[in-house]
Amino acid sequence: MFPRTLFAAIGIGVLAVAVAAIVVARPSTTVHAAAPSLPAYTPKGELLPPANYREWIYLTSGIDMSYSPKDNGMDHSMFDNVFVNPEAYQGFLKTGTWLDKTVMVLEVREAKSKGSINVRGHFQGAGVMDFEVHVKDEARFPGKWAFFSFDSDKGNGTLIPTGAPCYTCHAAHAAVDTTFVQFYPTLLPVAHAKGTLSPSFLKEEMSDGK
Amino acid sequence: MFPRTLFAAIGIGVLAVAVAAIVVARPSTTVHAAAPSLPAYTPKGELLPPANYREWIYLTSGIDMSYSPKDNGMDHSMFDNVFVNPEAYQGFLKTGTWLDKTVMVLEVREAKSKGSINVRGHFQGAGVMDFEVHVKDEARFPGKWAFFSFDSDKGNGTLIPTGAPCYTCHAAHAAVDTTFVQFYPTLLPVAHAKGTLSPSFLKEEMSDGK
Repeated sequence: MFPRTLFAAIGIGVLAVAVAAIVVARPSTTVHAAAPSLPAYTPKGELLPPANYREWIYLTSGIDMSYSPKDNGMDHSMFDNVFVNPEAYQGFLKTGTWLDKTVMVLEVREAKSKGSINVRGHFQGAGVMDFEVHVKDEARFPGKWAFFSFDSDKGNGTLIPTGAPCYTCHAAHAAVDTTFVQFYPTLLPVAHAKGTLSPSFLKEEMSDGK
Repeated sequence: MFPRTLFAAIGIGVLAVAVAAIVVARPSTTVHAAAPSLPAYTPKGELLPPANYREWIYLTSGIDMSYSPKDNGMDHSMFDNVFVNPEAYQGFLKTGTWLDKTVMVLEVREAKSKGSINVRGHFQGAGVMDFEVHVKDEARFPGKWAFFSFDSDKGNGTLIPTGAPCYTCHAAHAAVDTTFVQFYPTLLPVAHAKGTLSPSFLKEEMSDGK
């Protein structure tokens, strides 16, 4: 089980898809694999975990990010790494926003300090501490996007109900299409150039005097 | 120009390649692009900058890592992100070590704290502060590997002479084939499983009581 402290606090969340093999039984036993980076679900509506998100496109990492001025009480630091499926990334470079079937993964890892010859700062530990996914699936979700939480990186993801803090925070503050592109250093300039920044984000930027 | 403070200190370094277009003039004007993730050099021996390393495989990020107990005197924090060309990554998964023509990129970015709705921790700024590359090119370099430093992410890389601290530190402490796999959370278990950890690293691990 993952500790469940970071989702509401960090909320950059997103994840992951799966290698959904579609077996065509007739006239032969040919197996067609679905594109490995499209979202796939169980009959119950759970999201299958992405098998190969570490080979997707890396967007950014943060450490101990929080949107609350209150101390989160953690006695250790955590890195969060964000990945997106390659098709969605290429679409963003062209349009400044996200295609349908975008899948974003938030992978949380312990920030270690002492290890090997490192004596200062932090590096990333081997264990995944939390794992969350943000999926754009326009035909499936009324708000086009949904968040899924995972108990492990092997199990399926549970749909977080609309109305949870992650949805309202992303809707209110995200720079592009309910995603925190303001924290993705290679994509923010694209959104600026394409004019796809949200009105609420532009208003926040103005009020910050930027 | 980049500040040149991190290479010796962090030394995870590696880099980058380039889209070297080979124009075949006869019998037609067909253009063949070389594989975009293989190392390419100028006639002077400079390394061409990698055009698309952000679409390579992400290995890890650190923040303010240092191998010296002395304070580095920086008044700001820095993230370092490490990428490797996809062919090398796939080779590592199979063998636990690096193929010839491995190219590793170290990209350094400012760690920002206040921005948008973030109030704690750090996220990555838009500007690349430093950029370094570690290349395995067995026929070209006597020690098989070489480090290149870059003044910007657009210019060519300058070969760092053998004997510089990065070479001796990597040779003495790196977990696999002069690279700091001990800081790459998804690859360290592979090296363990394949038995490719260096004797010096294993000795250090033993002496740390791990």
